[in-house]
Amino acid sequence: MKQNDLGIFEKHESEVRSYVRGFPTVFHEAKGCRIWDMDGKEYIDFFSGAGALNYGHNDENMKQKLVEYIQEDGITHSLDMASKTKGEFLEKFHDVILEPRNLNYKVMFPGPTGTNSVESALKLARKVTGRTNVVSFTHGFHGMTIGALSVTGNAFKRGGAGIPLSHSYTMPFDDYMKDMEQETDFIERILDDNGSGVEMPAAFILETVQGEGGLNAARMEWLQKIEKICRDRGILLIVDDVQAGVGRTGTFFSFEPAGIKPDIVCLSKSIGGYGLPLALTLIHPDYDKFEPGEHNGTFRGNNMAFVTGMEALNYWKDDSLSRSIQDKSERIHAFLQDMMEKYPQLDGSHRGRGFMQGIACGVEGIAEAVAEKCFEHGVIMETAGADDEVFKLFPPITINDKDLDKGLSILQTAIEKAVDEKNPVTT
Amino acid sequence: MKQNDLGIFEKHESEVRSYVRGFPTVFHEAKGCRIWDMDGKEYIDFFSGAGALNYGHNDENMKQKLVEYIQEDGITHSLDMASKTKGEFLEKFHDVILEPRNLNYKVMFPGPTGTNSVESALKLARKVTGRTNVVSFTHGFHGMTIGALSVTGNAFKRGGAGIPLSHSYTMPFDDYMKDMEQETDFIERILDDNGSGVEMPAAFILETVQGEGGLNAARMEWLQKIEKICRDRGILLIVDDVQAGVGRTGTFFSFEPAGIKPDIVCLSKSIGGYGLPLALTLIHPDYDKFEPGEHNGTFRGNNMAFVTGMEALNYWKDDSLSRSIQDKSERIHAFLQDMMEKYPQLDGSHRGRGFMQGIACGVEGIAEAVAEKCFEHGVIMETAGADDEVFKLFPPITINDKDLDKGLSILQTAIEKAVDEKNPVTT
Amino acid sequence: MKQNDLGIFEKHESEVRSYVRGFPTVFHEAKGCRIWDMDGKEYIDFFSGAGALNYGHNDENMKQKLVEYIQEDGITHSLDMASKTKGEFLEKFHDVILEPRNLNYKVMFPGPTGTNSVESALKLARKVTGRTNVVSFTHGFHGMTIGALSVTGNAFKRGGAGIPLSHSYTMPFDDYMKDMEQETDFIERILDDNGSGVEMPAAFILETVQGEGGLNAARMEWLQKIEKICRDRGILLIVDDVQAGVGRTGTFFSFEPAGIKPDIVCLSKSIGGYGLPLALTLIHPDYDKFEPGEHNGTFRGNNMAFVTGMEALNYWKDDSLSRSIQDKSERIHAFLQDMMEKYPQLDGSHRGRGFMQGIACGVEGIAEAVAEKCFEHGVIMETAGADDEVFKLFPPITINDKDLDKGLSILQTAIEKAVDEKNPVTT
Amino acid sequence: MKQNDLGIFEKHESEVRSYVRGFPTVFHEAKGCRIWDMDGKEYIDFFSGAGALNYGHNDENMKQKLVEYIQEDGITHSLDMASKTKGEFLEKFHDVILEPRNLNYKVMFPGPTGTNSVESALKLARKVTGRTNVVSFTHGFHGMTIGALSVTGNAFKRGGAGIPLSHSYTMPFDDYMKDMEQETDFIERILDDNGSGVEMPAAFILETVQGEGGLNAARMEWLQKIEKICRDRGILLIVDDVQAGVGRTGTFFSFEPAGIKPDIVCLSKSIGGYGLPLALTLIHPDYDKFEPGEHNGTFRGNNMAFVTGMEALNYWKDDSLSRSIQDKSERIHAFLQDMMEKYPQLDGSHRGRGFMQGIACGVEGIAEAVAEKCFEHGVIMETAGADDEVFKLFPPITINDKDLDKGLSILQTAIEKAVDEKNPVTT
Repeated sequence: MKQNDLGIFEKHESEVRSYVRGFPTVFHEAKGCRIWDMDGKEYIDFFSGAGALNYGHNDENMKQKLVEYIQEDGITHSLDMASKTKGEFLEKFHDVILEPRNLNYKVMFPGPTGTNSVESALKLARKVTGRTNVVSFTHGFHGMTIGALSVTGNAFKRGGAGIPLSHSYTMPFDDYMKDMEQETDFIERILDDNGSGVEMPAAFILETVQGEGGLNAARMEWLQKIEKICRDRGILLIVDDVQAGVGRTGTFFSFEPAGIKPDIVCLSKSIGGYGLPLALTLIHPDYDKFEPGEHNGTFRGNNMAFVTGMEALNYWKDDSLSRSIQDKSERIHAFLQDMMEKYPQLDGSHRGRGFMQGIACGVEGIAEAVAEKCFEHGVIMETAGADDEVFKLFPPITINDKDLDKGLSILQTAIEKAVDEKNPVTT
Repeated sequence: MKQNDLGIFEKHESEVRSYVRGFPTVFHEAKGCRIWDMDGKEYIDFFSGAGALNYGHNDENMKQKLVEYIQEDGITHSLDMASKTKGEFLEKFHDVILEPRNLNYKVMFPGPTGTNSVESALKLARKVTGRTNVVSFTHGFHGMTIGALSVTGNAFKRGGAGIPLSHSYTMPFDDYMKDMEQETDFIERILDDNGSGVEMPAAFILETVQGEGGLNAARMEWLQKIEKICRDRGILLIVDDVQAGVGRTGTFFSFEPAGIKPDIVCLSKSIGGYGLPLALTLIHPDYDKFEPGEHNGTFRGNNMAFVTGMEALNYWKDDSLSRSIQDKSERIHAFLQDMMEKYPQLDGSHRGRGFMQGIACGVEGIAEAVAEKCFEHGVIMETAGADDEVFKLFPPITINDKDLDKGLSILQTAIEKAVDEKNPVTT
Repeated sequence: MKQNDLGIFEKHESEVRSYVRGFPTVFHEAKGCRIWDMDGKEYIDFFSGAGALNYGHNDENMKQKLVEYIQEDGITHSLDMASKTKGEFLEKFHDVILEPRNLNYKVMFPGPTGTNSVESALKLARKVTGRTNVVSFTHGFHGMTIGALSVTGNAFKRGGAGIPLSHSYTMPFDDYMKDMEQETDFIERILDDNGSGVEMPAAFILETVQGEGGLNAARMEWLQKIEKICRDRGILLIVDDVQAGVGRTGTFFSFEPAGIKPDIVCLSKSIGGYGLPLALTLIHPDYDKFEPGEHNGTFRGNNMAFVTGMEALNYWKDDSLSRSIQDKSERIHAFLQDMMEKYPQLDGSHRGRGFMQGIACGVEGIAEAVAEKCFEHGVIMETAGADDEVFKLFPPITINDKDLDKGLSILQTAIEKAVDEKNPVTT
Repeated sequence: MKQNDLGIFEKHESEVRSYVRGFPTVFHEAKGCRIWDMDGKEYIDFFSGAGALNYGHNDENMKQKLVEYIQEDGITHSLDMASKTKGEFLEKFHDVILEPRNLNYKVMFPGPTGTNSVESALKLARKVTGRTNVVSFTHGFHGMTIGALSVTGNAFKRGGAGIPLSHSYTMPFDDYMKDMEQETDFIERILDDNGSGVEMPAAFILETVQGEGGLNAARMEWLQKIEKICRDRGILLIVDDVQAGVGRTGTFFSFEPAGIKPDIVCLSKSIGGYGLPLALTLIHPDYDKFEPGEHNGTFRGNNMAFVTGMEALNYWKDDSLSRSIQDKSERIHAFLQDMMEKYPQLDGSHRGRGFMQGIACGVEGIAEAVAEKCFEHGVIMETAGADDEVFKLFPPITINDKDLDKGLSILQTAIEKAVDEKNPVTT
């Protein structure tokens, strides 16, 4: 491929391709929070591979370990056989992540995608409880295979199933009805009422911050209440931490500040550190009840991802990264507040927490316009929400202050231009 | 990890782990058709990562390209944005594979696992036709997520779903009733009969050689008949070539000798060449009807797999690999015939074709015993079939004669010992 | 059968029999609001065949017409062929019921049970809209066949299905969350939100007063709001008036005071007048889209029920019955208020309206005790609600003052005795 | 209604009405095997209310008992309370039908329609076994509510559901593949094969002669084989004898000649004797496991039907009716053979047994033409089969020789005229 030519993709790739339409150029190189296209144009990455690149692109330490491993002919693909690298990853994950947080999960490798982890979690919860129903939440997103799609809220994505989706019941996520007591009372009532028509579920599945659903961040007291609702009734609590986990909100797991302990946790995206496919399903030992091979998959043993994922765990040996994310999160928050004040035409409201914040715009099309202007000016940023009404800041959690500033500055320019162009009248 | 210690896996990994139980050692290095464990013990690989390592381990050319790419900070993870590497892969795949075979598929990247490709195929077929039912076949295996599991035959695997599986109808695979005309007449009658109780399906989904299901190889005339049945009724034909494709049977696609042209083809496992997660869904342009983003996934843009997968395509620039596989397949066939004659105690019958052949044993437990003895003597080989009654030869398609001989020789020893130990009385 | 012997039923009838356990005697004769058992013991009927005997037992006019018809060898069973009696019933139903209420439904005869009418309504709504989801309400009851059970709330009854029930979504019925605006806002939000995970439904199905579900009477403004929610979104409104219809609440249709016009209405129970099996599905002409025979059933043409049902329509030629029901309803209401004050130990709250009122008791088991004492003292009355916590006054709508007084007086005795015996401590 | 005016039905009744289109006149009186319309035109009834009028219309003995019962104010509607009449019916059914046949079923009253009985049988089988799947057969018909429709073969009727039908698997009915051993081997193989993709079912449900499905009569050895297949695997055998039972094939139950003992039997249609709605579900005591009220329905206690149904049982006190049916069945058979020979243009093949025989015509539209001509000449007869390709002789089982002859003679005229008019060319 000699030049920046999108024609190849139009010719050969399916119409289902999507991000290439929002970011219409051919990328080639990347480092840290920067990507370059074939024309050499540089972009600040406020997108982070939708959360798969929390540590930025091609982290130097990981890269070195990876190249070494490849050069020594370390085993690449091992299914769920034992490999040295996998053993080391398991131990380090236990020592650096689980033990210090007083968590004692067994680790399942379910196939290297988030949706695979979610499917394994749902299957296990149903098997363990003997129940078929699962409670999902408004605006939840859990994946595109039929099991995961059945607990996903987005109508467009559900429509792609081609079959009615079943075995789930949607409950209101935190703040859906603007009255937390009312909301959780409703949830409890529905569960405890023999006449409600909703079967006692095997599990609740939720994201603590809904990434695709519009950056809705659940309050800690809501998460605590939900955990209690589950515990009191023998319902398993599944936290899908595929997007919000691995530091995205400032702690390794997104649910840490709530002090809850889910029965099952789904991890993927950044768990491999370098953007390599890997997923984990973390299971409370009491529920580790699959028979050998009852759920499996070919790419469970992606040893390159073990190598880089293990190296990534070094970031979590002390709390310096955590503190840095939290500090910068406050700056992002302040910036977004400022933007909403400066540009009331956005009709904006703040969303999210940590390194997954954004602005939900009350004016149709403006969030997408902001993302488009960002791209023109050299920032990659996507939108979220059922109507793409949120623009979503998703920088690498390792970004430095200078790059963050640069990105935010471009974002401000983009907002300005979008507002000018759209010229929305606020009401 | 200092030593060959399985304790780490018992302590930290979920009970669902499976292959590690059949091959109880810790692997470390691998090259071509050989793997070494942490004690330095060498194994011949007659397993090939369940078909993900058709080109053997750590192929030297791919390795070199891969290391180069990493060292130059080529973009690693790009979702479905355009990248130079992806563009090159698309072009080369078109030029080397599709065009010479007179196939004009659009390529979809559905998330890097076989089950993901199958889910995308099923969703698309249902969307395109507006029908919900899909015809699957006895002993078919298509994956472990709910959509794919619904068209999978294995009762144990289906049981893991925890919900009744629906929207599919099982038909007999080739030779199920030992009378091909009877079988296909039955299929046609069920479809054409307004009183049969079986809804006109969106699609048929099948493997030409059923890998997990016991190495059942469909006859070419059966495949042709099935294609005609589909065409005559506006039913889409999906070939799941995840395991049998990419040269495993001697041609790139397993269905080439039949001369059929499926509407949708699922590829994964060895398409990335090096054991790196990648999957493709190939779609006839008439059915390329997903909206942008209607099916997606985080790890669609695994650029390392594009690099190695592209390099792997060089094997298909001429027919030398094909001829080599076909020649060696005949040797494997002859060897297996010989084994069945020498060891009538196996009560064996031949299964499969190409580099996916094996023996179905009529005596309970003996196929597993053969695999166990193989492992002891330095060959990795798995079993297949609903009752693990088939031992399954799955060497790399690039294996040389000497290594193949060595593996077969160990296999013969294993058979001998298994027969001795089990001492089965044939009836 | 010579004597009052329940042994015959224990010996020959299935364990599923139920009312015979609450009313353990063998009945023989009946007239108006009275029933006699084989020992000649007389009971006042505050049960009315669960709503199938709104006009009391063996109404003299209907009886005379029925005997005449039989003696003249009028056709008894005619499927959905045309018969003189059916034609006359259709005309009279139109003239006496539909036209004066400005309703122009087409009449479908769906098989002579309420559940059959509900099934036909659900099938039609799905066919007409091309959607599969149906919104049901907490504590709704619609029947025991799989389609109707899927929109029924009671966990015990749902459990009998033996399969997961699907294609429905439960919404809160009026007053479920004690805040009507909150409730209907929630319903609208869920429907209008592309990220809610709830598919746009074919229909809402509801009872205006939930009979089995505990005598929950929806407010008129709630019904109006629900109708508007449906109209605004092209959702069909199905009112299941099987129990609350045919005068039970004081008007022929229970929804008349709300001024709403459902798209489909289900009628059964008392529509035949004399307790003979008959059901109607009333369909707005725009939705009369079943093909001939697309829903059918053997006993659609129960001509004896046409004869008695037609005679029953005479009660509706003027508003005297309506006024009488409404007057007596107020007396029942006053009586129940009085009981709750006199017997605070019931921890009672009033439920229902018209001739379907009762008291929900906060003390476990006491509603059932009241019903039991009633039976002992000569009143037949059942309980309702998911935990049988409501005792349910269901006298014939044609009962005279004297008999009503007598029944209420026995009921008071029963309450007194139940309270004494249970001796509940109110808290 | 003063005159024979179909306009009333067109104006007021739903488009779903069906038989009135085939028999376009307004009926009024009926006696034995004769019906008269409002113009006084007489018809011989070769339809028998689709099997609900096996004893003909308005049988004099039943009529007398019925009128007496009504005049004495016997209780009409009793739900599942005990009534004198119901007790007597239970005893007589036991003494006259069950005991002499060495059957010891418990009797459930499931709501007075066949589909209700089928739903109760399916629910019970699933509850008892804890399995969800049910095996149904090609061309089976079991009713129009969702549970029953899921095991029904007819595509048009299934299409009315508006949702995908699930939890069932269609197997080939006797002779579907023209090789009984092949067929039952296939059934056994699918069930015993852990890789077939078909879950072990709760039950098989079948009709011994498929009434709606085209008068396909299973051979006795097939029924015996099916019973054995069920017994060997702990699968319940449900015989839906709604249409073929109550003497229609010459014995009370249609399965008697096969010597099998189903676990559950569904009865309706003629069980009430006089065309009044009634249904029974007969349950082997081991499976009588519903909780009280777990399946119910308002019209279970149709006492008028108990009165006439009890009287009808007198026909079965000796074998005279049986012998008469069998004798006349042979005459019908001979007549049909004769017709097929005389009119080769029908391209006919014989179907059915007993009083449910007919001719499947190989020429499109001719069966319907025969039925139409019959109507013109004074015989009511319907068609059956997925494409209405069978004309179906269904006279009352109490018809005398003279009336039978008269009906057959008219039928011959109709065939002649249909053949003339259609002038089909046989190939």
